[in-house]
Amino acid sequence: MKYVRFSAAGNTSYGIVDGDSIQELRGNIFEKAVPTGKTLPLAGVQLLAPCEPANVVAVGQNYKSHLGDRPQRPYPGLFWKPKSCITDPGVEIVFPEGASNVHYEAELVLVIGKTARNVAREDVPQYIFGITAGNDVSERDWQKNDLQWFRAKGSDTFGPVGPAIVTGLDYNNLLVESRLNGEVRQSQRTTDLLFDIATIVNYVTQFVTLQPGDIIFTGTPGQTKAMAPGDIIEVEVEGVGVLRNRIAEARAAAR
Amino acid sequence: MKYVRFSAAGNTSYGIVDGDSIQELRGNIFEKAVPTGKTLPLAGVQLLAPCEPANVVAVGQNYKSHLGDRPQRPYPGLFWKPKSCITDPGVEIVFPEGASNVHYEAELVLVIGKTARNVAREDVPQYIFGITAGNDVSERDWQKNDLQWFRAKGSDTFGPVGPAIVTGLDYNNLLVESRLNGEVRQSQRTTDLLFDIATIVNYVTQFVTLQPGDIIFTGTPGQTKAMAPGDIIEVEVEGVGVLRNRIAEARAAAR
Repeated sequence: MKYVRFSAAGNTSYGIVDGDSIQELRGNIFEKAVPTGKTLPLAGVQLLAPCEPANVVAVGQNYKSHLGDRPQRPYPGLFWKPKSCITDPGVEIVFPEGASNVHYEAELVLVIGKTARNVAREDVPQYIFGITAGNDVSERDWQKNDLQWFRAKGSDTFGPVGPAIVTGLDYNNLLVESRLNGEVRQSQRTTDLLFDIATIVNYVTQFVTLQPGDIIFTGTPGQTKAMAPGDIIEVEVEGVGVLRNRIAEARAAAR
Repeated sequence: MKYVRFSAAGNTSYGIVDGDSIQELRGNIFEKAVPTGKTLPLAGVQLLAPCEPANVVAVGQNYKSHLGDRPQRPYPGLFWKPKSCITDPGVEIVFPEGASNVHYEAELVLVIGKTARNVAREDVPQYIFGITAGNDVSERDWQKNDLQWFRAKGSDTFGPVGPAIVTGLDYNNLLVESRLNGEVRQSQRTTDLLFDIATIVNYVTQFVTLQPGDIIFTGTPGQTKAMAPGDIIEVEVEGVGVLRNRIAEARAAAR
């Protein structure tokens, strides 16, 4: 099943994608959502980030190809992204003033389906509602120099997710890709995750209780490069679709 | 004005503290709240964290007495705490399994009153609804060894805030204290902040748009020590009141 969140005629709804159409739903897909009976053309709506997470968890250094020569960590390397950085498909990524080395990071993103606390490895599949794609946008100079990755990975628009939440996929074996202006830049399967999905969710929920709609960015493969205003960055997760965002002009700071 | 959020007879409301009583309000204090006309005894309600932030920002290394011999940073050292760690006054702090070096951190906490983006230094007071007290609970070994401070400062119950939001105080000159089992452990005025309130809010909002009810932990003074199950930790900010939490027994992890 492929779920989207969308805006049409001033209203925000969830829906189920059926070919080129959306079957509109009433209610929240994490609680109880029922078809309204109304169908809209997919091309005629504005897709939104497919959920509204209270917590946005992210895993760093989770592919050998991204880690390079650095030693592998004994447990998942985690960080927080803020709710405020979550960005809709198609909306522009805006560099804050002073940002000069902003990279894309294509990632598989897990969407939690029920309250998750101390989840045993073997129970993890029951807690995952579905998956989506995410771009863990990162300013590398800030990431290197700041006390923590607060603005490097948490600035406004640094968290595009979407375009859909898909259920029933084998998230342990999916292709994750990025394309910058149409050219493939990252391409690797989730079979190569250093810490797999079961390990990540088990580990995170030892410390943090996750709620329905919370999301986990699972890490990015390979090497990345800086983007520039006007660029089009696409993240594609097999079976989910393409998350496409353009880079806007820079944003000025107040003094 | 001293605002609290509280639970009584199964309902959650905002209220205004008036001596030993609470004047109940209808609505959200960040939008429009009006008195219901009902008054409750303060001692008869359960106080809650005084707001429900979507974003929880925190400043590190913001007092010379805490920084010690480390060099002062050229700009505020920021990190995220998750919404899920926010803890009510009086509720127990629970150590996750494996936590063995968990410290208190008494802090002045700012509560944002309106959408704040690129706020100029001189305009900052207009964006601050009021202040409260916070305990930036921190596991020092995890803080030192992990990739980022995800669990060190983001585990469940690691963010007590309250007991009230107070307006009209001179937040640039207030005493911040902690007491462990009644003994004063931290005691310093916000005049000693390395980056003051205007600088913090100006800096944060260059990167992140804050919303009403979002909060900023402004940093902790002095040196801290490990807490143990059964301890009572109190954080007091002058004019705000006492934020008191007990340390519970350890929580077991799932395998």
